[in-house]
Amino acid sequence: MNIQKQMLEAIESELQKQVARLDQPRTKQFHEMLTYHMGWTGEGAGSEATGKRIRPLLVLLTTASCENEMKKSETIATPYWLCAKPAAAAIELVHNFSLVHDDIQDNSDKRRGRNTVWVNWGAPMAINVGDALFVIANQAILDLMEYQSADVVSKAASILNNSLLELTRGQFMDMSYEDRNDLSIDDYWPMVGGKTSALLSACTHIGALLGSASEDEQEAYRLFGWHLGLAFQVQDDILGIWGDEALIGKSTASDLVEGKNSLPILYGLGKHNKFAERWSQGPISMGEVKAVATLLEDEGAKNFAEETSKVETQKALEYLDQANPRGEAGKAIRQLANTLLTRKQ
Amino acid sequence: MNIQKQMLEAIESELQKQVARLDQPRTKQFHEMLTYHMGWTGEGAGSEATGKRIRPLLVLLTTASCENEMKKSETIATPYWLCAKPAAAAIELVHNFSLVHDDIQDNSDKRRGRNTVWVNWGAPMAINVGDALFVIANQAILDLMEYQSADVVSKAASILNNSLLELTRGQFMDMSYEDRNDLSIDDYWPMVGGKTSALLSACTHIGALLGSASEDEQEAYRLFGWHLGLAFQVQDDILGIWGDEALIGKSTASDLVEGKNSLPILYGLGKHNKFAERWSQGPISMGEVKAVATLLEDEGAKNFAEETSKVETQKALEYLDQANPRGEAGKAIRQLANTLLTRKQ
Repeated sequence: MNIQKQMLEAIESELQKQVARLDQPRTKQFHEMLTYHMGWTGEGAGSEATGKRIRPLLVLLTTASCENEMKKSETIATPYWLCAKPAAAAIELVHNFSLVHDDIQDNSDKRRGRNTVWVNWGAPMAINVGDALFVIANQAILDLMEYQSADVVSKAASILNNSLLELTRGQFMDMSYEDRNDLSIDDYWPMVGGKTSALLSACTHIGALLGSASEDEQEAYRLFGWHLGLAFQVQDDILGIWGDEALIGKSTASDLVEGKNSLPILYGLGKHNKFAERWSQGPISMGEVKAVATLLEDEGAKNFAEETSKVETQKALEYLDQANPRGEAGKAIRQLANTLLTRKQ
Repeated sequence: MNIQKQMLEAIESELQKQVARLDQPRTKQFHEMLTYHMGWTGEGAGSEATGKRIRPLLVLLTTASCENEMKKSETIATPYWLCAKPAAAAIELVHNFSLVHDDIQDNSDKRRGRNTVWVNWGAPMAINVGDALFVIANQAILDLMEYQSADVVSKAASILNNSLLELTRGQFMDMSYEDRNDLSIDDYWPMVGGKTSALLSACTHIGALLGSASEDEQEAYRLFGWHLGLAFQVQDDILGIWGDEALIGKSTASDLVEGKNSLPILYGLGKHNKFAERWSQGPISMGEVKAVATLLEDEGAKNFAEETSKVETQKALEYLDQANPRGEAGKAIRQLANTLLTRKQ
């Protein structure tokens, strides 16, 4: 079994163990709401529904890529990276907490092709499901105590919660942009830093901490995660306007229809030209999507976003080189980064 | 200045420092939403709007009531209990996180006489305000690192998050009871344990931990907080039906009109008599409140609730005796308990 597959199995079983904290008399149905959202139960359950678990995988691959004294005691059955399992689960849980609340905030009725939690059980229950995922994430990170010193555990908890504060700040910015008509790309980076990069950088930072990496290596891993997040998001933004699904698919695939504050759109708004004029006139329909996408491309937004993505990808890969990931996990983390940074959909 | 007043000032300044984490460029308005909810800014700001800060006060009074070696180094300017400030703030922050989300879930438009956060800024923003309060609470508890060993800090964080899981479970039960017509008092205790007692017992448990109390004393303080919570809630439930405000005030003061799952109501439902019959027929109007309250009293619900409140009060005070709180803080904590347990509104 390759290392990535082994890790994904460990992640899934750790997540199930953590979420089982709610599997108690009187809260079985509550537990079910969480297992549904995590993709394990209910209609459409399965690997499509769980998502790719990229964040926890990044945690474990980072830990495994570090060279440290304790690793010498590892065996095939108990590899060193197992000690990072609770942190990997914690990060996936906070990611899912943010998705559940995000779906309520955005009024999104589908996620990964299935009904969102609030659609199935109502917004009040869904708020509570998100809250519980968050609580369990904090309990999970404290479970690191089984493997690590209390100092390291509180450092990891601190990195996690600092990134979460940035997440709430990014979320605030995103929501507050809805009422504004004076936006430009200057407003993009702080929002995306909070909404996407903060948590990805927490993955690699915590992974490196638990792998006993040096301060310099921890910083390189942290910055790798940060720029990986930015590059990933910019790519997502490009696909959200010019990707196949956005141009021919359903309305929810197009950021133009959704009115999302993406990089190409904020770039176009900053130009105060024809795109900005059309944008200010109200929602864009599916029928207009191709024409508006072309308009935006003509104003230089696609080119700008592609250049930006290249720059951020370059930075991410440079920091990864600097971190110098080692062994089989090192190869796997480079491969994962390349896959994430060159995807076409 | 008496110890309670000194503590309340320390609590308020610690809370403001913690919430200021959001006082950054681009999130000034987000910060304002939190300071509004905390009662410091906006219309109606002031001591009426902040609430009584009973939970953080319980933390600090408990810490100060313990006798320990470190206390010998304290001076009037730097009393030993100051080391528990971040934990006191953390608990008040999670309490407020739960209030902000609760107000959305219950569709309540007023809290302490002011608009709730979702009324002012919409539910999506209010969800995020609650989330941020929760994140900051976790950051605050980790700030204990300045005063305590990492082992003690992770223990405190663990107690806090365990109580929060119970809080989400209690919240789930409360919401799920809305659709049920087979409820009785057996359904009351797990719900109230989660919604009220879990956090109050975390206050006294963490306070005792930080005061270096023995394991036995910590357990006695924890149980004091637990039964204090139960007694307090039962009293609240009695006042919610037979208190002056409930009988003559606005509809929101009466649990009969609000349809709350309170002890007297669940007792009445379990009797399957006239009250249960009236309850099953739909909402109770303000005009019916006196008659239905009398009906419920005639079926023994008031008497039962008063007896229950006495029993829980007795248990709380016995555990407090067992914990043996000492000094000026010890007197203050006994006084606070008595005030809470004998209030008339």
